[in-house]
Amino acid sequence: MNKSRVNFDVLTPVNFLVRSAQVYPDKVAVVHGEKRYTYREFRDRVNRLANALTDKGLGKGDKVAFFCPNIPPMLEAHYAVPMIGGALVSINTRLSSNEIAYIITHSDAKAVFVDNDLAPSILPVLEKLKGVRFFVNICDISPEKPLDGPDYESFLAAGSSQDPEIRVDEEYQLATINYTSGTTGQPKGVMYHHRGAYLNALGEIQEAGMTCDSVYLWTLPMFHCNGWCFTWAVTAIGGTHVCLRQLSASDIFRLINEEKVSHMCAAPTILIMMISHPEAKQFKIKQSLTILTAGAPPSPTVIEQMESMGALITHVYGLTEVYGPHSVCARQDSWSHLEKEELARIKSRQGVAYITAQYMDVMDMETMEPVPRDGKTMGEIVMRGNNVMLGYYKDPQATEKAFHGGWFHSGDLAVIHPDGYVQIMDRGKDIIISGGENISSVELENTIYRHPDVLEVAVVSSPDSKWGEVPKAFVTLKPGTNPSPQAIIEFCKDNLARFKAPKDVVFCDLPKTATGKILKFKLREKEWEGHDRKVN
Amino acid sequence: MNKSRVNFDVLTPVNFLVRSAQVYPDKVAVVHGEKRYTYREFRDRVNRLANALTDKGLGKGDKVAFFCPNIPPMLEAHYAVPMIGGALVSINTRLSSNEIAYIITHSDAKAVFVDNDLAPSILPVLEKLKGVRFFVNICDISPEKPLDGPDYESFLAAGSSQDPEIRVDEEYQLATINYTSGTTGQPKGVMYHHRGAYLNALGEIQEAGMTCDSVYLWTLPMFHCNGWCFTWAVTAIGGTHVCLRQLSASDIFRLINEEKVSHMCAAPTILIMMISHPEAKQFKIKQSLTILTAGAPPSPTVIEQMESMGALITHVYGLTEVYGPHSVCARQDSWSHLEKEELARIKSRQGVAYITAQYMDVMDMETMEPVPRDGKTMGEIVMRGNNVMLGYYKDPQATEKAFHGGWFHSGDLAVIHPDGYVQIMDRGKDIIISGGENISSVELENTIYRHPDVLEVAVVSSPDSKWGEVPKAFVTLKPGTNPSPQAIIEFCKDNLARFKAPKDVVFCDLPKTATGKILKFKLREKEWEGHDRKVN
Repeated sequence: MNKSRVNFDVLTPVNFLVRSAQVYPDKVAVVHGEKRYTYREFRDRVNRLANALTDKGLGKGDKVAFFCPNIPPMLEAHYAVPMIGGALVSINTRLSSNEIAYIITHSDAKAVFVDNDLAPSILPVLEKLKGVRFFVNICDISPEKPLDGPDYESFLAAGSSQDPEIRVDEEYQLATINYTSGTTGQPKGVMYHHRGAYLNALGEIQEAGMTCDSVYLWTLPMFHCNGWCFTWAVTAIGGTHVCLRQLSASDIFRLINEEKVSHMCAAPTILIMMISHPEAKQFKIKQSLTILTAGAPPSPTVIEQMESMGALITHVYGLTEVYGPHSVCARQDSWSHLEKEELARIKSRQGVAYITAQYMDVMDMETMEPVPRDGKTMGEIVMRGNNVMLGYYKDPQATEKAFHGGWFHSGDLAVIHPDGYVQIMDRGKDIIISGGENISSVELENTIYRHPDVLEVAVVSSPDSKWGEVPKAFVTLKPGTNPSPQAIIEFCKDNLARFKAPKDVVFCDLPKTATGKILKFKLREKEWEGHDRKVN
Repeated sequence: MNKSRVNFDVLTPVNFLVRSAQVYPDKVAVVHGEKRYTYREFRDRVNRLANALTDKGLGKGDKVAFFCPNIPPMLEAHYAVPMIGGALVSINTRLSSNEIAYIITHSDAKAVFVDNDLAPSILPVLEKLKGVRFFVNICDISPEKPLDGPDYESFLAAGSSQDPEIRVDEEYQLATINYTSGTTGQPKGVMYHHRGAYLNALGEIQEAGMTCDSVYLWTLPMFHCNGWCFTWAVTAIGGTHVCLRQLSASDIFRLINEEKVSHMCAAPTILIMMISHPEAKQFKIKQSLTILTAGAPPSPTVIEQMESMGALITHVYGLTEVYGPHSVCARQDSWSHLEKEELARIKSRQGVAYITAQYMDVMDMETMEPVPRDGKTMGEIVMRGNNVMLGYYKDPQATEKAFHGGWFHSGDLAVIHPDGYVQIMDRGKDIIISGGENISSVELENTIYRHPDVLEVAVVSSPDSKWGEVPKAFVTLKPGTNPSPQAIIEFCKDNLARFKAPKDVVFCDLPKTATGKILKFKLREKEWEGHDRKVN
């Protein structure tokens, strides 16, 4: 007596749509401007897309690329492509033409769906894309078809609305490939399996506290870890997806109240964009709004200001390789006695593994032994569990390296506190070794964030003839403020060990990735031009 | 590139405790009267129990029986026994000595833990229990040790508090055996696997909407489908278990407010006990309280009266073979326009499969084709998915029969409405065929429940020389009321097709199982003594 077809069913996120379309056929599943699709319509459109792809000869193992913003077609692709046994490749919309060509070619995508407004990024590299059998134009804001192929709605209309056969035969079948934003070197194709996507989606429901009444605003790009699996989680719980083609603080404010948004995810830079907008001061959120933030530890100031608007900030942490968030700074009852500022500081830690993720530790990089839980000893964050990728597409060597010793290696340096909460001290190369002392650029940044005039900050190492290297701060000021660099330095000396204060402060805009992550390596590279920096 | 120890971890509910003890060590995990165990203490006690069992030579594949009410040892057993690779057998505390002996012997239990207050049920059959290696006395309310063996606390104290090795090697490993209450024939041992327990626990978190702030009151016996997997779900989410040794309405009322209970599960009879208690009228629940109810469809009256106290009633449906609830009467936005009574009526349906259960249908018993979704055509409820049992212990024939055609057969007769919601018309033999017309005893009961004087009702078939059989109602009246049988019959004729009205009404107490299910078969047997009833 063992597993059988009665008591075993493959865990796959495509089943979430099957169920929600049965249970909530008339409920609004997807909002996009004036458009509203019920779950019945959502399922119908997914079926048509799946059947149209099958009609074009695509199926098991085939890759289909989508290059578009957070609009309904991207959401539909998250079901239709894995449903026919294929793998979805969601491409970051802010990449360069060459990067896009690399991803399409490397992923072996046979079909590419392109938002016509983004076509200019594809057109110059068209002839490199020899493996692509056909293109489809997504005409969301205009009827133009810059690529040789049908428009998305006609493509859909040609497909049958019948339920297609779900061709997911086993849990470790490939569901999507997400290319890392690749701050150095070529992007790597992170392969997601169905089991991980299913469980991570359930994990998000738990950690975000979603119910069938939840309304989710798409401020996080769906091309980023499949929107941290919320593409699947919101559907699973029978909630409503609110699409957002382009990020703007005023649209976010408007939609939060108009659509009664209960959940959203956003990098701290998006939150900074919100709190620095003129509307922010008088903006009050009427319903409960939970915001999951990650990508960088949110500064205590950001947490405090967002919460005074009425949002509840939950800090999560992860990487593309673990389907987005792996850990959460889980709230403790004992924190209710803390001062507001101290609470915000404690909430900026990376925390503990999700229920569905389970395993996270900080290990000495050489011995691979867990570091002591003293909040001081640094090591590398490692993870394992059902939410870890299959590996890197066509790169077994990189996979082996990342999985060395039975753990996924994040490359992030952290300490683990006595309460078991992990706190990142620095992403790999961001640690600054000055006169033999380790200085955490994140700790320094968090201090500078608390200065009232500071909007955004990045700290990197800069060469120094005496100390080897010293911290240097790049700061974006709030509009209408005008402190001196020395004032910032003094502020740090007053609030930290003096040796940790930056030796130099520059006021400027900060370079960022498409997803809003600050590109510290760009700042660092410039500092070290002509010098030779040994990375620890 | 495939599954590996980095990206695969066995789904098992014992890991929930491991995580919560790490994340919430100082939070109250278990409340029992004046006693309060933190998660650290809960884990410590579980470790000691697991290690003490190992010290006694128990391990992989061994069965351990617990015979006690809803007190901490039962909860601890839900982790310690599966953790060492064993299977927990939780025995219904209201069974007869012979039934208990049958279960202990049939399950091959090597150790039996007995609440000393329940020992009188075991002592008369002790010599039948030849396979039992040792007994442990659980001395919850007195120090007596009626069985030859240590008391529970000494047994625990002898075990090490070190983390034991978790011996769960695969997801379909046996975790628990739950014996069906067996309204006819010998009880059957329903085998639960780790994967099902894990997923069903996550399912309960979703459907009940639990968070780390949830406080769960143990009104549902833990021996009933392992407390519908809430034994694991509450721990998974980091909530608080509030134990309850003995059911009484006044204790339930007191604990709901004292402990700020947010969730509980209860058969409709428990709800009836609550609403008919003198305190009920002025009782107001201060916090949000979600009550999951199942076992029988709750009557609209019960739903209405509980909700006027401030509880939110969610109706779920399932069987032991599917880990407790499999379906939920999921709330629809469109219901908000319904009249209170109509809403209560619609909420008494069995509904749709859980997110984690997925598959439920109503099929023609002969052809095994799904019945039309017309709300009229009756068929059998069938289920499949990851939450279906492994099978019946040592009874492959019964398993094969229950799994016939690739579905688990519930034996419950139902219709499926155009909205996809399933509604039970009758449990197998409860349908009444009168003059060729099918009469649903449940429909008739729901009507009688709406009579203001009725506390509880059961309708069964009774032999009739003209019609073959006719419906007969057994009614418990509310205290202080005194309607005539004819008044009840007239009420039915006013509210239903006249032929469906009972031909006879008897006022009496109703026979029930240990879990509060009304034993209609007992009433029916008595009616049919000396007659030959052909069951359809």
